Amino acid sequence: MNSVYVVPTSSPSDVSGVKQLIESGTIQAKDVIAVLGKTEGNGCVNDWTRGYSVDTLKHFFEGYLPKEDADKIVYVMSGGTEGILSPHLSVICKNDEPAGETGLEKSLAISASRTRELLPEEIGTMAQVLAVRDTVIELMKEAKIEDPKDVHFVQIKCPLIISQRVKEAAERGKKVVTEDTYESMGYSRGACALGIAIALGEVDASKVSDVSICKDYSLYSEVASTSAGVELMECEIILFGNSKEGNSKYYIEHDVMEDAIDADAVMRALDKADVGYLRTKHNEDRELVHILAKAEADPLGVVRGRRNIMHDDSDINHTRHARAVVGGVIASIVGDPMIYVSGGAEHQGPAGGGPVAVICKVKE
Amino acid sequence: MNSVYVVPTSSPSDVSGVKQLIESGTIQAKDVIAVLGKTEGNGCVNDWTRGYSVDTLKHFFEGYLPKEDADKIVYVMSGGTEGILSPHLSVICKNDEPAGETGLEKSLAISASRTRELLPEEIGTMAQVLAVRDTVIELMKEAKIEDPKDVHFVQIKCPLIISQRVKEAAERGKKVVTEDTYESMGYSRGACALGIAIALGEVDASKVSDVSICKDYSLYSEVASTSAGVELMECEIILFGNSKEGNSKYYIEHDVMEDAIDADAVMRALDKADVGYLRTKHNEDRELVHILAKAEADPLGVVRGRRNIMHDDSDINHTRHARAVVGGVIASIVGDPMIYVSGGAEHQGPAGGGPVAVICKVKE
Amino acid sequence: MNSVYVVPTSSPSDVSGVKQLIESGTIQAKDVIAVLGKTEGNGCVNDWTRGYSVDTLKHFFEGYLPKEDADKIVYVMSGGTEGILSPHLSVICKNDEPAGETGLEKSLAISASRTRELLPEEIGTMAQVLAVRDTVIELMKEAKIEDPKDVHFVQIKCPLIISQRVKEAAERGKKVVTEDTYESMGYSRGACALGIAIALGEVDASKVSDVSICKDYSLYSEVASTSAGVELMECEIILFGNSKEGNSKYYIEHDVMEDAIDADAVMRALDKADVGYLRTKHNEDRELVHILAKAEADPLGVVRGRRNIMHDDSDINHTRHARAVVGGVIASIVGDPMIYVSGGAEHQGPAGGGPVAVICKVKE
Amino acid sequence: MNSVYVVPTSSPSDVSGVKQLIESGTIQAKDVIAVLGKTEGNGCVNDWTRGYSVDTLKHFFEGYLPKEDADKIVYVMSGGTEGILSPHLSVICKNDEPAGETGLEKSLAISASRTRELLPEEIGTMAQVLAVRDTVIELMKEAKIEDPKDVHFVQIKCPLIISQRVKEAAERGKKVVTEDTYESMGYSRGACALGIAIALGEVDASKVSDVSICKDYSLYSEVASTSAGVELMECEIILFGNSKEGNSKYYIEHDVMEDAIDADAVMRALDKADVGYLRTKHNEDRELVHILAKAEADPLGVVRGRRNIMHDDSDINHTRHARAVVGGVIASIVGDPMIYVSGGAEHQGPAGGGPVAVICKVKE
Repeated sequence: MNSVYVVPTSSPSDVSGVKQLIESGTIQAKDVIAVLGKTEGNGCVNDWTRGYSVDTLKHFFEGYLPKEDADKIVYVMSGGTEGILSPHLSVICKNDEPAGETGLEKSLAISASRTRELLPEEIGTMAQVLAVRDTVIELMKEAKIEDPKDVHFVQIKCPLIISQRVKEAAERGKKVVTEDTYESMGYSRGACALGIAIALGEVDASKVSDVSICKDYSLYSEVASTSAGVELMECEIILFGNSKEGNSKYYIEHDVMEDAIDADAVMRALDKADVGYLRTKHNEDRELVHILAKAEADPLGVVRGRRNIMHDDSDINHTRHARAVVGGVIASIVGDPMIYVSGGAEHQGPAGGGPVAVICKVKE
Repeated sequence: MNSVYVVPTSSPSDVSGVKQLIESGTIQAKDVIAVLGKTEGNGCVNDWTRGYSVDTLKHFFEGYLPKEDADKIVYVMSGGTEGILSPHLSVICKNDEPAGETGLEKSLAISASRTRELLPEEIGTMAQVLAVRDTVIELMKEAKIEDPKDVHFVQIKCPLIISQRVKEAAERGKKVVTEDTYESMGYSRGACALGIAIALGEVDASKVSDVSICKDYSLYSEVASTSAGVELMECEIILFGNSKEGNSKYYIEHDVMEDAIDADAVMRALDKADVGYLRTKHNEDRELVHILAKAEADPLGVVRGRRNIMHDDSDINHTRHARAVVGGVIASIVGDPMIYVSGGAEHQGPAGGGPVAVICKVKE
Repeated sequence: MNSVYVVPTSSPSDVSGVKQLIESGTIQAKDVIAVLGKTEGNGCVNDWTRGYSVDTLKHFFEGYLPKEDADKIVYVMSGGTEGILSPHLSVICKNDEPAGETGLEKSLAISASRTRELLPEEIGTMAQVLAVRDTVIELMKEAKIEDPKDVHFVQIKCPLIISQRVKEAAERGKKVVTEDTYESMGYSRGACALGIAIALGEVDASKVSDVSICKDYSLYSEVASTSAGVELMECEIILFGNSKEGNSKYYIEHDVMEDAIDADAVMRALDKADVGYLRTKHNEDRELVHILAKAEADPLGVVRGRRNIMHDDSDINHTRHARAVVGGVIASIVGDPMIYVSGGAEHQGPAGGGPVAVICKVKE
Repeated sequence: MNSVYVVPTSSPSDVSGVKQLIESGTIQAKDVIAVLGKTEGNGCVNDWTRGYSVDTLKHFFEGYLPKEDADKIVYVMSGGTEGILSPHLSVICKNDEPAGETGLEKSLAISASRTRELLPEEIGTMAQVLAVRDTVIELMKEAKIEDPKDVHFVQIKCPLIISQRVKEAAERGKKVVTEDTYESMGYSRGACALGIAIALGEVDASKVSDVSICKDYSLYSEVASTSAGVELMECEIILFGNSKEGNSKYYIEHDVMEDAIDADAVMRALDKADVGYLRTKHNEDRELVHILAKAEADPLGVVRGRRNIMHDDSDINHTRHARAVVGGVIASIVGDPMIYVSGGAEHQGPAGGGPVAVICKVKE
């Protein structure tokens, strides 16, 4: 059965929650295809909590699996738990055991994989867009999702450019898209999102070229969630959707926040999933398992006609401001701060907004 | 008539909105009793945007009023516009012109004044509690509010302790409550809040002593909003309530947020005020003018059972995290980021929560 | 006589030191041509201490001079007093009173002025380079300095690009050099430095074009010190040099730091000025009045072959790291932390390094 | 032979330098008694680079040694490489191979161990002072150092108090010394330093009690360097000195910086070691291997009579300011930024100052 379990962490190296899932027999280590988490660093360039968590998880799974199998698991950590956001890990499992009677026409379908390693000069360019596009198309097949509209969330961890990689490219006579490390995170996230958008038919491939990336924000995916990190050179992708062959008690829906305070979009997503939320619990048979969203500081520094200072703050990066806000908004609706909110939503939803997805479950 | 106008600012020295109010004849400089604003600094010790804004406003009003009258206006600036919060000024006016027919039984009553200057060693002690208590009682009288339950928001700007003031006290053989400047902000805010609570009968005076301050958080005011700043040694107080003799088209209500994501409390306050809000506009005759709230990082680092990192973040102070969250939550309900959210809610609402007040108006 | 006085400040609005200079008769308000200061903000985009200090100084001088004369004074504030750096103001005066017998062949010559206001799209381009070049050439004449080698420090305060200015330019169909505000500070500083370098013959004009700015760091001035701020649209320039017609007991020398820890350069500058410093006091007749330097994080993140993290730190901007270091190095040599160290040295000295100037005085 | 090797790191999980030492046969894994490093986090509460580095090193040594032996190695990571400071690891080795002819009367003697685990309520109290004292006395014996004056540097990594530990203590009816996590780091460092001072006879035991800790700064050790971290509950101690039985080509000397810019103290330490430094290379037979220092923001915010803003900066913690300064000062003297500077020097040298030690070697 395809399944998702969310466990709290007390630090980037805390795997006790995952251990408990395995030791109690709730899940089996061999079924884990991906671990998606929020760690408590700054979510920016020098956030070592992501790598720390991934290294600790790998060592942990090596205790249960052959090293090569532990390495195959896709570990995606997103840094930054500002405000009320609560550090956690989502463990994503897949096996052939039947889900049983669920009453769902379509249920959760998941797959995870990696693109090839990119060269520094490919980051933030069409080369990255196309590599992601190809892997997303494969992942849809693997998840047995036929209609791209059944894909509701595609999470990518992608590389960024640091000084050393600039030099490396220069030595081969190549130029990178930007030498500013923090800025390169945006380009990488944006290229991934456009790759997803093309794969899912949300954006016409002919409209996208190197110059569109982080420039033409009218091009976007409604289901992309991409996050950059220093610790890899390939793109690691987890795809979530619903399928008739989903074999799960779980299912997923999504909507798109138009801006950082678009509570309506969150409630629409919950309504589509027919799951109860805090103020209007209306379906006792369903349970909210997880909620995943992207947060972004509006590029013009304006929300609902009001100026904000997120882009002018030289003490706190704008991605940190944005995550704190979106986390608060969503948690105030679902009544739970242990939600996944990732920053920097270039080409992921409209400018200043971003996708929000809900993973739910038929209660037993 | 008692009235409140809210204008956006483009920087801490932008008084163009206030100028426009005066030049257009909407208000008269002589009627202004207080200006309450959010400025875009860090809201912590080295936030100079508060003083910059106050100095600029004083100079501005000296262009319209004799210097002594410009000095009498109470200027209260609260620093920190994290996330979507939008820098602004609220201009609070009072004159004898009749409000006309409003249909309101009680309407907005306001008053503003200052305590005496405190000595450094009095900050955060019963001396401060009692000075505030006495001034609040006077301000109620001045506002013609008989029932303390009709007081809905008391805003105080209070002093803090810096190295120089520690020395000054030491030279007189006196000890300050803490030599940690950032910490002293909390003590000063807490003492003010307890002074308000005693004045309004929310807390029994006999229960409060020096050791209660910033220790026993079961003692609190539901309507206190206090904010510390380096730029003064007295406490500047603005009191808002409703009165039969209010002479206004405006009125105020409040409720108390139990934690940073307590959207229900915000909606209850709006319901009490019978004003439409974003998702359920239900009274076309009323208009929301302003919303004022206190934000606080939960002292135990836990919201709804989930750990957060606000108190462990050595890069961003917890007050900044908390304002970003509460700002997002409230703005997502009222659809406007130009709201007043001030950080650090010691003895202002329950631990981790804080008061939220709404100022509304009968439409013309 | 041309003279320079340095006074400490206790906050960005503290003018008591300047007041004391005037009230004691040490200087006359009418002789002040410029005030150059270090204020205690972050020195980055949202540093309001610069504007706060300038506004306060203008109001202060309006108490002594006609408004138009108070406005003519060039006020240049550089934000950021990291580490041991101590906030202060340097008051620069000029009058015809004879300096008397000094034994100096050439002595301090100073002049100050402004370029025209720049358009947002001119910032960081040749338009800015040329505007600065022209004004520097005029200022040399005004200071009666014939040989460009006698110019030892040129301080410029220059504008930067913010969202509003991007829009403004866009409305006229113009594109700015970068939409990233923090980045635009570097372009503006760099263009000014190249303008100085051309004016003084340090760099051949034919080698400089739009694409050189913040790209070709082999082009630089040895005496430029430029600093960007949100509070102006022109470039404000103070030029310091020595002249036979200098009329002063003061004089200035300089050298160039090759990197942030180049103590030798500091000592060479002190040696040229024949003034005693901490470890080797060797000229009892001379006195060190002030020391001015530029600090820069090495663009490649390497100093003396060792990696540093200044460019990868998403919590603290690299200019702040660099000022802390250079301030410490210089203060450890001269034994005084009240020195002027300004951040971001694009085209001001070699990459990673910067100019250091010493203003000295013949003792009376 | 007792020896110390310093290798650069490219990230907190980079062990390639240590690997190279082992693979090249320069050192043997079994001889490593301690690894002391600077990692690139903020050096404050939420600095996970320390734990990341320690975990990576343990895993690394498990590849060469039985797990219990890898665990016995004392790993002390100090976070914070502000300014030009360069992340690195010092590998400290000990074996019986003879050092050969060195011409040194006394040479490097080293030992490393741990105290028992402390309870949260013991942190920052006499219980910690005494535990440290006892272990230091044992370590002197182990290192065969008879005269406490031959001890030149004692490095301790000690625990701090976090919310969870406050609760834990409260559940046993115990109170911790402070509930402020950042503040607890200071108490823990201070108690360790006093433990060292008593063990070495620098401070009379009778003068020290709970109330002296972080209060009476006239009590201090000249050779203590203590650093707090969230990742342990015991105190890990590395002791460096010289002994007739030292068996080494290495030796160590120290001096005490009176404030953050006390370059003279650094030069005195180098002089004692008779090793060449940048400006006055005077002994070709000796080589500087490493330099270790403590940095501290002056508690009164004043250096050489000049105000600084380290304690008033709510954006950057004062320990970060201080490390940047002291790193710059020392690197400007020795010409190498790969030095060990650790922040927070409570009872480690005089208030505002701190110890500085140099490890040198007789060249081969």
